Amino acid sequence: MAKIVECIPNFSEGRNAETLQALVAVAQSVPGAALLDWSADASHNRSVFTLAGAPEAVAEAAFQLCKLAAELIDLRTHTGEHPRMGATDVIPFVPIREMDMKECIALAETLAERVSGELAIPVFLYESAARNTQRQNLSTVRKGQFEGMAKKMLSPDWAPDFGEAAPHPSAGVTAIGARMPLIAFNINLDTDNIEVANAIAKSIRGSSGGYKHCKAMGVTLAERNIVQVSMNMVNFEGTPLYRVFEAVRFEAARWGVRILGSEIVGLTPVKALADSAAYYLQLEDFEYGAQVLEQRF
Amino acid sequence: MAKIVECIPNFSEGRNAETLQALVAVAQSVPGAALLDWSADASHNRSVFTLAGAPEAVAEAAFQLCKLAAELIDLRTHTGEHPRMGATDVIPFVPIREMDMKECIALAETLAERVSGELAIPVFLYESAARNTQRQNLSTVRKGQFEGMAKKMLSPDWAPDFGEAAPHPSAGVTAIGARMPLIAFNINLDTDNIEVANAIAKSIRGSSGGYKHCKAMGVTLAERNIVQVSMNMVNFEGTPLYRVFEAVRFEAARWGVRILGSEIVGLTPVKALADSAAYYLQLEDFEYGAQVLEQRF
Repeated sequence: MAKIVECIPNFSEGRNAETLQALVAVAQSVPGAALLDWSADASHNRSVFTLAGAPEAVAEAAFQLCKLAAELIDLRTHTGEHPRMGATDVIPFVPIREMDMKECIALAETLAERVSGELAIPVFLYESAARNTQRQNLSTVRKGQFEGMAKKMLSPDWAPDFGEAAPHPSAGVTAIGARMPLIAFNINLDTDNIEVANAIAKSIRGSSGGYKHCKAMGVTLAERNIVQVSMNMVNFEGTPLYRVFEAVRFEAARWGVRILGSEIVGLTPVKALADSAAYYLQLEDFEYGAQVLEQRF
Repeated sequence: MAKIVECIPNFSEGRNAETLQALVAVAQSVPGAALLDWSADASHNRSVFTLAGAPEAVAEAAFQLCKLAAELIDLRTHTGEHPRMGATDVIPFVPIREMDMKECIALAETLAERVSGELAIPVFLYESAARNTQRQNLSTVRKGQFEGMAKKMLSPDWAPDFGEAAPHPSAGVTAIGARMPLIAFNINLDTDNIEVANAIAKSIRGSSGGYKHCKAMGVTLAERNIVQVSMNMVNFEGTPLYRVFEAVRFEAARWGVRILGSEIVGLTPVKALADSAAYYLQLEDFEYGAQVLEQRF
C-alpha cells in the first residue's frame, strides 16, 4: 500500500489574488502531490493549503511553496488579525496511510534543513517534531510574532532548530512540525441551554481535566434553536470518537438532555470511524491492518 | 483514487501441488494484480484464489488462470466433495474501491467473451451479472455438475450466455459473475444453548423472512462453552452490520441472553465499518466519498 502524508502549509497572504493563484499553481505542479483544498481569509490575511500524496512529492511541493511565498510575501508590510511570524507561517505534516509519526518528524526535519539552507529562513520544529516541550505548542513558539522574532531569537532558549538565530528580513521564521490528523467533531443536544453545552465541554476537554486529546467548547446553533458541543479531536487514536460521544451522552443525562446527532466537519481518516465501529460492534481480536481489505494494497 | 476490483476464482483442483503452484505463479505474474490469498482443500479437491488490483490487470490474471486451468485440470477424472462444473468453476468480480456493480458486470462480460472465444469454454453469467433471475443463484446454474452439463445445455433454458451449447470436453463450463463483497460476521452469545443461536439466526436471515442480504446459522464454540450466530453478510450496503447486530441484541433479550462480542473473519471493506460508526455516532449528513480522507486519492 502506498504511503500517504498530508501537509497543511499556512501562508501570510489572504488578500492578493495574484499571489494566491501563483501559490495554487505551484501546489498543483508536483506529480504525486495533490492539492485537496485551499482557502484564504481576508481579515486574517492568511491562507491554508491542504496537500496530500507521496511523502517525497508532498515535501517537495511544500518546499516550492515556501520558496515562492518568500519571494512574494513581505512580512514587513503584512497586517491581519491572525498571529504570524513568517511568509510561510507553519507547515505541519500528518500521517495518513502507512506512515507513522516518526516518518513525519523525519520529513519535517529534512524540509527544515532545506528551508534554512536554501532559502535562509530559520525554522522552529513544533508539536510532535519539537525537540523540547516548550516548543510543542505553536502559540508559545509564535509568541512575539514577526516583529518580536529578532529579539526573541537572541535568547538561548529560542535559538532556531535550523538556520541562523535571526529572522529572514522579509520572510521571517517558519514553524515546521508533525501532528496527528485533526477531526472536527460536533455533538448536537436537544436543548437551547448553552450552559449545558459549556458544562459538558468542560467535563470532556483535556485542558480542564477531561480527555487529553480533546478540545471542546459549547456553541449555539441559532437556526436550529439548539446547542452543540464543538470539538477538535487532535489525536483520534489517543482519544477515540466513541469515547467522547459516550461521555457526552452520560454527562448530558444529568440534565435530562439527549444527543440529537453529531457531525464531522471536513475530512476524517477512515480509521477513526472503523475504530468506533469496532467498539460498538464489540469486535474481538480485530486487526485493522490485516483485515481491512483496502489496507492490503 | 485508483479503482480496485477483487476477483475470487475457484478451481477444481485441491490436491496436485504442482498444478496449484503453477496457478499461483500465474496469479502473481500480472503487474497491477495482487494475489492476496489462496487456499486448497483436498477433500473438496478445490482451490480458491483471491486477486485484487486494477480492473484490467485482475481480469487479465483471471483469464490467464482460466487458460492454465483448462490445460492442467481434466474434469473427466475429477472427484471431490464440492459440486463443480468446470476446471475454473466460478469467477466472481467484487467492487472494492471506486467501482460500481455495473463496472464489475462489464468486466465479467468481457472476460466471458474472451474465455468462450479464445478457450472454447462456454460461460454462464451469474449473480448480479445474470441475464435472467434463474441464473442468479450459482447452485441452480451448477445443478447437474460437469457430468450433467452436456444434456442440460441442450435445453433452451440453459443455453450458455457466451459460447457453444456444449461443455468443453475436459474443462467443462465456467460461471462468471459479479457480486458485493462478502463479510463473515459472527456474534457470540453468553449461553451454551444452541437452540437460542438457531432461533436468532432464523429470525435474522433473509431465507426465513429476516434481512435480505444476511445468511445465518447457529454454531457451538465448544472451546469457549458458548454459542454463536454465524453470518455471511452478502451485501453490507443493503443489510449493514449494525442492523443485524442490534437485531441479534433484541432477539437475544427474549431469553435473557447478552451479546459477548463479535468477530469478522478474514477481510472486510472499510466502508462496512464506517457505515456502522455513522449509525452509532448518529452522524448527520456524512458524505463518505467527500469526507473520508483516503477517498480523495
